[in-house]
Amino acid sequence: LDFGDLLTARVRSVGSASCVGLDPHLDRLPGERPAGRVEAAASAQAFCMGVVDAVSDVVAAVKPQVAFFEALGSEGVAALEEVVAHAKKAGLIVIVDAKRGDIGSTAEAYAHALIDDTGPLGAHAATVNPYLGPESLQPFALRCQQGKGLFVLVRTSNPGSGGWQCTPPSGIAHRVADWIAQQNESCDDFGPIGAVIGATLGDEVKAWRTAMPRAWMLVPGFGAQGAGREDILDHARPDGLGALVVSARSVLFPAAGREGNDWRSHVAQRARRFAQTVAIEP
Amino acid sequence: LDFGDLLTARVRSVGSASCVGLDPHLDRLPGERPAGRVEAAASAQAFCMGVVDAVSDVVAAVKPQVAFFEALGSEGVAALEEVVAHAKKAGLIVIVDAKRGDIGSTAEAYAHALIDDTGPLGAHAATVNPYLGPESLQPFALRCQQGKGLFVLVRTSNPGSGGWQCTPPSGIAHRVADWIAQQNESCDDFGPIGAVIGATLGDEVKAWRTAMPRAWMLVPGFGAQGAGREDILDHARPDGLGALVVSARSVLFPAAGREGNDWRSHVAQRARRFAQTVAIEP
Repeated sequence: LDFGDLLTARVRSVGSASCVGLDPHLDRLPGERPAGRVEAAASAQAFCMGVVDAVSDVVAAVKPQVAFFEALGSEGVAALEEVVAHAKKAGLIVIVDAKRGDIGSTAEAYAHALIDDTGPLGAHAATVNPYLGPESLQPFALRCQQGKGLFVLVRTSNPGSGGWQCTPPSGIAHRVADWIAQQNESCDDFGPIGAVIGATLGDEVKAWRTAMPRAWMLVPGFGAQGAGREDILDHARPDGLGALVVSARSVLFPAAGREGNDWRSHVAQRARRFAQTVAIEP
Repeated sequence: LDFGDLLTARVRSVGSASCVGLDPHLDRLPGERPAGRVEAAASAQAFCMGVVDAVSDVVAAVKPQVAFFEALGSEGVAALEEVVAHAKKAGLIVIVDAKRGDIGSTAEAYAHALIDDTGPLGAHAATVNPYLGPESLQPFALRCQQGKGLFVLVRTSNPGSGGWQCTPPSGIAHRVADWIAQQNESCDDFGPIGAVIGATLGDEVKAWRTAMPRAWMLVPGFGAQGAGREDILDHARPDGLGALVVSARSVLFPAAGREGNDWRSHVAQRARRFAQTVAIEP
């Protein structure tokens, strides 16, 4: 199955185009702040696995943020491997948020590290950074034939990004969008190559949707980061599909500092509410 | 000490602006190809440590390529931690080639993971990807006050990169160069913020040197990747400083498949030859 179709099927089956970001901020985990790096990695792993269990019936996907695990060194990376395996087993689509970008054998090594089933993580898809040009995306794109997917950074909504991504009259973001559209061209419906498009871009979003008609968009910034339902209407197609919306903090951190297992029901409740906000028509 | 000055001092002390890339390709290590992931990580670690020992007296810096370690999972990342510690102890400047780029607390986590002395690696500097705008560089730039450095991707020389990095009339590469120049402005000599500039860019290089007068340039692509001495003359200032030239394959892989410890002398010999090629005036 093509990754685009796999994601569509999963979104339809849960009735929601929702993705929970797994961002284990050490100072916002349940219980006390762990002391050393080994304890921190164990806490991050236990927390993310608990979140997976709490959300796996209601959301379509999870997006582990690699940086938070890498900050804990090799123990953190080992924890990430466990979390990804657990989430896959729970039936979730797993998108590792790594934003990698390199060329040649290095890009090949990153693709292997993140999405090959014979590699250490074997996620369904990864986020990638296109700065180094089309060659940097090719090793990932080749793996679409094995059912893997990617989400290429196109246009983000943090304040300083626009002037760099869209240098007048166009810019790198436009080149990347053209490349994505071309790669997905032969697909009947959504292709395997998606785009990261910020939530709070206003009218600009319509143009990106038109430029990449067959791309799933990964839309960060929902909830605690300021975007609401009305901000993500244009990311989707008229049939409601095409925008996989990410929420992390507002789902995860009602758990902050809570003792015992109490936090799990809070996360489950927040995830349900989030999933309903981005529900799709059956 | 400012990272720019630290690098200058090290280059002067070895008399060469040379950096050896540590790219442990599994199929090009000495001896037989390791069987499992644990064995592979052990081989990669032993090889890179042997290279460090062989080159530490003659070159200025090493640049471990994170992707090759990550492809070996958490065991590979543990190996990278050992390699970085060993290279620092040997007196080398260590630049982790990670090309990370993200924003907010995620960028902060990456900076901690790569260059904080309290983090798992504690390298002197890291390569970073500017796609997400100036905010993505800020957490790294802040650490320059603790003597850390960064090399921001500006302009690479792989065939497809130009059309994306330099969209007419300018492009993201020009914005990034302006940002780097501004950050280093108050420095007497080289500042802590360097730029990755490809080796085989021809006349274009002069304009990048002019645009970033106080930036050390990290120049990949020397040796096996096709660039020679004549290609990197314009990257340096008239006094010969300012271009830290990277060679990986042509230094490392005379070792491929060799039995015993024989490979070490071959690597040492190649490193000496490379260091002489990019020697600087005393």
